[in-house]
Amino acid sequence: MSNFGATHLRVVNPFELAFREARSAVGPASEVLANAEEFGSLKDAVADCGLVVGTTAIQHRDLQYPLRHAVQGAAAICAAIVSTPVAIVFGSEKTGLSNEDLTHCHWLLHIPTRDKHRSMNLGQAVAVTLYEIVREGGSQSRSEEPVPATAWELERLTDVLSEALQISGYSTPATRAATEGKTRRMVHRMNLESRDAEVFLGMLRQILWKLRS
Amino acid sequence: MSNFGATHLRVVNPFELAFREARSAVGPASEVLANAEEFGSLKDAVADCGLVVGTTAIQHRDLQYPLRHAVQGAAAICAAIVSTPVAIVFGSEKTGLSNEDLTHCHWLLHIPTRDKHRSMNLGQAVAVTLYEIVREGGSQSRSEEPVPATAWELERLTDVLSEALQISGYSTPATRAATEGKTRRMVHRMNLESRDAEVFLGMLRQILWKLRS
Repeated sequence: MSNFGATHLRVVNPFELAFREARSAVGPASEVLANAEEFGSLKDAVADCGLVVGTTAIQHRDLQYPLRHAVQGAAAICAAIVSTPVAIVFGSEKTGLSNEDLTHCHWLLHIPTRDKHRSMNLGQAVAVTLYEIVREGGSQSRSEEPVPATAWELERLTDVLSEALQISGYSTPATRAATEGKTRRMVHRMNLESRDAEVFLGMLRQILWKLRS
Repeated sequence: MSNFGATHLRVVNPFELAFREARSAVGPASEVLANAEEFGSLKDAVADCGLVVGTTAIQHRDLQYPLRHAVQGAAAICAAIVSTPVAIVFGSEKTGLSNEDLTHCHWLLHIPTRDKHRSMNLGQAVAVTLYEIVREGGSQSRSEEPVPATAWELERLTDVLSEALQISGYSTPATRAATEGKTRRMVHRMNLESRDAEVFLGMLRQILWKLRS
């Protein structure tokens, strides 16, 4: 929750000992736990929310509720949250939400999992759900793309490598032109960044210098 | 992992007691653990993989590596996995991946989290990453993609190039380890196809042979 900026935790009838222990834990999520609110019923816990979304590992438990996959569900949550508090309700790890709990939900969200292993660890289900909700906003920030090497840089690389191949005997006067073409194609396929091309050229020049001497 | 159909777990130097205990656990994920492979080094663990993706909670630890957000990173993984095994590498929960570990990675994947709470629980980070990968429906149509070089092939390239750099005086005994790391990172960023890696290795070996003589 804390990782993805969901800071309002509400717990319904927690197991007191475990809850007290969790609350006293230190770490970056301690604020979420310290501010967690305790309720005696789900009804009370979601009272101020305009959208209540249940979560389920089982796809067809109950056709009484609209079921949305995480992707569509998260989009619907994002659309609603600008105008109302949204509750996302998770059941206990062992039994999930009860039929009574489900009656408080507008619809159900489902994370698609492998048929042979549907049920998720609770913490992981929460993480995936919240990740999906903030996903669109998070991905808009930069994913810095590297600056590719210029053709000129690649040509210098080709030259130096070709000469090293000649001196070392990899190419002969007869194969020289063919090897140079092969080298140029290979250098192009390396998809070098500009800074890598510079480093690589420095390496090859040093090697060439040694080969010449 | 089991939820999202990732069934090949490889562990590097696990804490034996915890690993043995985890292996003996029952449940739908027990098959993944029972079949988990143990390795003595990351290098060996990723040797047959054509794409090695590191994971990091820190956005700017190391500008030496291309950094992709989870959305773009997962797309790149989906594109690669049709033609080669892909390794996604997670570090320990406390310290993450070491700088040496990172040199074995082609690029780094980052799950966007709140600035005040960047570091994620390990299991949750794995769940979110795998969720994002299978999110689109996973099965991209198979196309004739080039076969990328394996980690093993890249390691041989790194070895030969590093030795040539030593003999030529590019690296000194004092800078040797740093240069090797720099070389390994650069070789990974070249995105070599397997056949190019073979050709390039042949070239470098010939050059090395000449340097030695």
